Amino acid sequence: MFPFEHIISIDKEKKLPVYRQIAISIINAIRNGNLKAGMPLPGTRELAKTLGVHRKTVIAAYEELNSQDWILIVPRKQVRVSEHIPTLKPQKWHAQNSSVSYENSFDLPLHISKKDSSQRELTVLPEVFIDDGHPDIRLSPVDELLKIYRSYTSRSFTIKKSVVGTTQGTLKLREELSRYLSVTRGLNISADNLLVTHGAQMSIYLAAQLLLQPGDIIISGKPGYPIANSAFEKTKASVIEVPVDENGLDIHVLEKICKKKKITAVYLIPHHHYPTTVTLSVERRMKLLELSNQYSFAIIEDDYDYDYHYSSSPYLPLASGTHKGNIIYIGSFSKILGSSLRIGFMVAPKNFIQEALILRKAIDVGGDGYMQNALAELIRSGDLGRYLKKAKKCYHQRRDYLNILLQQHLRSYISFTLPDGGLAVWIQLKSPYSVNTLKTHSQLQIKRIDEEENAFRLGFASMNEKELEDAVLLIKKILTNIYSK
Amino acid sequence: MFPFEHIISIDKEKKLPVYRQIAISIINAIRNGNLKAGMPLPGTRELAKTLGVHRKTVIAAYEELNSQDWILIVPRKQVRVSEHIPTLKPQKWHAQNSSVSYENSFDLPLHISKKDSSQRELTVLPEVFIDDGHPDIRLSPVDELLKIYRSYTSRSFTIKKSVVGTTQGTLKLREELSRYLSVTRGLNISADNLLVTHGAQMSIYLAAQLLLQPGDIIISGKPGYPIANSAFEKTKASVIEVPVDENGLDIHVLEKICKKKKITAVYLIPHHHYPTTVTLSVERRMKLLELSNQYSFAIIEDDYDYDYHYSSSPYLPLASGTHKGNIIYIGSFSKILGSSLRIGFMVAPKNFIQEALILRKAIDVGGDGYMQNALAELIRSGDLGRYLKKAKKCYHQRRDYLNILLQQHLRSYISFTLPDGGLAVWIQLKSPYSVNTLKTHSQLQIKRIDEEENAFRLGFASMNEKELEDAVLLIKKILTNIYSK
Repeated sequence: MFPFEHIISIDKEKKLPVYRQIAISIINAIRNGNLKAGMPLPGTRELAKTLGVHRKTVIAAYEELNSQDWILIVPRKQVRVSEHIPTLKPQKWHAQNSSVSYENSFDLPLHISKKDSSQRELTVLPEVFIDDGHPDIRLSPVDELLKIYRSYTSRSFTIKKSVVGTTQGTLKLREELSRYLSVTRGLNISADNLLVTHGAQMSIYLAAQLLLQPGDIIISGKPGYPIANSAFEKTKASVIEVPVDENGLDIHVLEKICKKKKITAVYLIPHHHYPTTVTLSVERRMKLLELSNQYSFAIIEDDYDYDYHYSSSPYLPLASGTHKGNIIYIGSFSKILGSSLRIGFMVAPKNFIQEALILRKAIDVGGDGYMQNALAELIRSGDLGRYLKKAKKCYHQRRDYLNILLQQHLRSYISFTLPDGGLAVWIQLKSPYSVNTLKTHSQLQIKRIDEEENAFRLGFASMNEKELEDAVLLIKKILTNIYSK
Repeated sequence: MFPFEHIISIDKEKKLPVYRQIAISIINAIRNGNLKAGMPLPGTRELAKTLGVHRKTVIAAYEELNSQDWILIVPRKQVRVSEHIPTLKPQKWHAQNSSVSYENSFDLPLHISKKDSSQRELTVLPEVFIDDGHPDIRLSPVDELLKIYRSYTSRSFTIKKSVVGTTQGTLKLREELSRYLSVTRGLNISADNLLVTHGAQMSIYLAAQLLLQPGDIIISGKPGYPIANSAFEKTKASVIEVPVDENGLDIHVLEKICKKKKITAVYLIPHHHYPTTVTLSVERRMKLLELSNQYSFAIIEDDYDYDYHYSSSPYLPLASGTHKGNIIYIGSFSKILGSSLRIGFMVAPKNFIQEALILRKAIDVGGDGYMQNALAELIRSGDLGRYLKKAKKCYHQRRDYLNILLQQHLRSYISFTLPDGGLAVWIQLKSPYSVNTLKTHSQLQIKRIDEEENAFRLGFASMNEKELEDAVLLIKKILTNIYSK
């Protein structure tokens, strides 16, 4: 007799009903060829006895298998494996257990770029976590947003509208957004110039895919934003890094490159460059625009941090000036609402947006229409603006408090320039102190550490005074302990 | 005197403060070369008079310009354009208005595939909108989900956790999900085998990018799911379409192709194939697995509609059987929670997930950690299961009611096979009736119409009995009116 007790594994602790466990085991045995087409199966009474289960359980399993055409039940006669199962070579017994399948490695070729950084994701939070410039979600109007969201999903007449326009972004949000960007950034655009995305990174990725092809050259700052660079590398374009000094991207180096090579695009973070927080000077902005016209390259202007300025107003985006339409302007609400609420945008000429839209659909169909309309409402009502004003004041204070803490406790270990705006400070360690000591400490996790620059980013906005103190004192403790030995 | 009144445009109706309008106008004039480096500007009193504004407004504008280094204010002497502005050729007057920039077309080369369908997005909803198989969000537990969501965002100690693990998906969700998929689909996997995405489409896109390169061949069903095909086309792989009959993808045609050509992957919708709603037979499932081993191709198993079966249990996924690990299993919660809540997943061997993770980060960093944890909680508490049971009962009734309506009103116009599960019926029009007549009617919008097959998809789940009646009667009215003429 066929050893059904070996083929069928039952685990009564599992959530999966026993009858389905039996059915799955039999399917697997058929699939791997141990049970062949036409082969008779034991009667329900017999199998129940063999397995030590109730007969009804076996009946349920057989019915399931029958309804799925795996077996054939001839009433009052016999149960057998369906005739239409192709005969396969039996596999080794240990291969029967279906749990092994995904313990295998995927063994067909994968097309991945070699440069991928394999930075591990955080899975456990240490005592002190220093992000690279997040807002404080405790201050963010998430609650207001969700309140509006719920009012939409509970009204049945708006229900169907959730399917409308979710690839480009709802018209309501795009219209509010075009007004908002006009008021805050001097951008004169219409809803047609906007694509709503899941965040700045998706806008960067889309722009990269549309602009670049293998062998093209894109310019990026050094030190720079690695995740943007990884999006460029996916296109197999070459990323040429241009130094970023205290006035931003070094435009003279860029000009020299332009004279020698065809540049397709320049990726630019005009405010609070990531990671060093410098802002591109007016002179360089103008020169960059001039070069863009002269050498016909596109500019990807990633203005992720525009909203936070503490002393003067921010510079207007390059995109707000007079240009030929070859500037892709990118922004996001993650720095206002928190990074969990994934809404960003791309501003570009209409023909560019249309192509980005087609690509975006292939990547992920679209966003959450309710959330987009809730955000639109938050902008329209002025709540977002009021919140931003409050948050700016708070982050201003936190920046200044951090300044005091750094002067007081870490002056001999570090050097830094307090930025005019943004949510983080770029801190360089003085010799002989090394950021590596901060990297390996169990109580501390710093999101952005740069070994080459011996520096790290201290996101201050998400921490209140107590948390800032804790962070600074922990850093001091680590540095003192190690170097006093 | 320089014609400042022509350069500076003020619109008091605008939300933008007048002083910023003045500042922007002057910046634009400097940028386009009308105001040159070192050129003197009028005193505040004089300019205020010229423009008809209060002197304080001009002072504010000048201070703004000064703080941004556009101009130089020599106290009690003079205001002039900064010396460090490169001299540019003046542009024509009409080019000054910054509003024109994005009215230009983007005129650098774009890398787009020619096959892109330019299907327009809906912007206005007609009286009757027939989707291609959406759940009814009026029944969905969105409210419960948002309640949990809000409880997370209001608890300050969980705040920082929103940054943890958002690229792969939070550990909490991946652990719940691996249990859930084991119980519902017989998949024996761990959290490491899971990547949480924005939806099935993103999983398809990621798999395509990792598996395919230019010139590779991927097999897809015909008629098929155009958005998946567009993701494949983005890789410049060739999509070879294999006919789908009443038993699903024609495996014999596939085998013939395998004998002649190297196939890299097969894209499969095993349950309720889109659009025709057929389910792949057991025999073909086994044959497909055999071919996959023999010819070493990957299978992308898009089981978007697994959850809805009305008569028997669904077939277990191919992925749940014994295999070498070369099956990428894809699913989504959009068909349960509504398409606005964008959470989907990909199941694959760990090494594949790790590569997908790196690519996913470049595309869009990650998802909403709070929402993911709220969903995990909904699964853990059993609420999701209970909801699904209720929804299934309701959709079963709607399917049967639609069946009656179709038999009663449209029998002579259409033919269809009532599917065992899923959220839509595939309806073919009998000659001489043409789906084109349904395409152009102002009161009706059908999401998925297939001219070649003279058929369309009628998503019944999102409509209650009244709405189903309205839809069927409107279709009848349109067909009768046109063909009785």
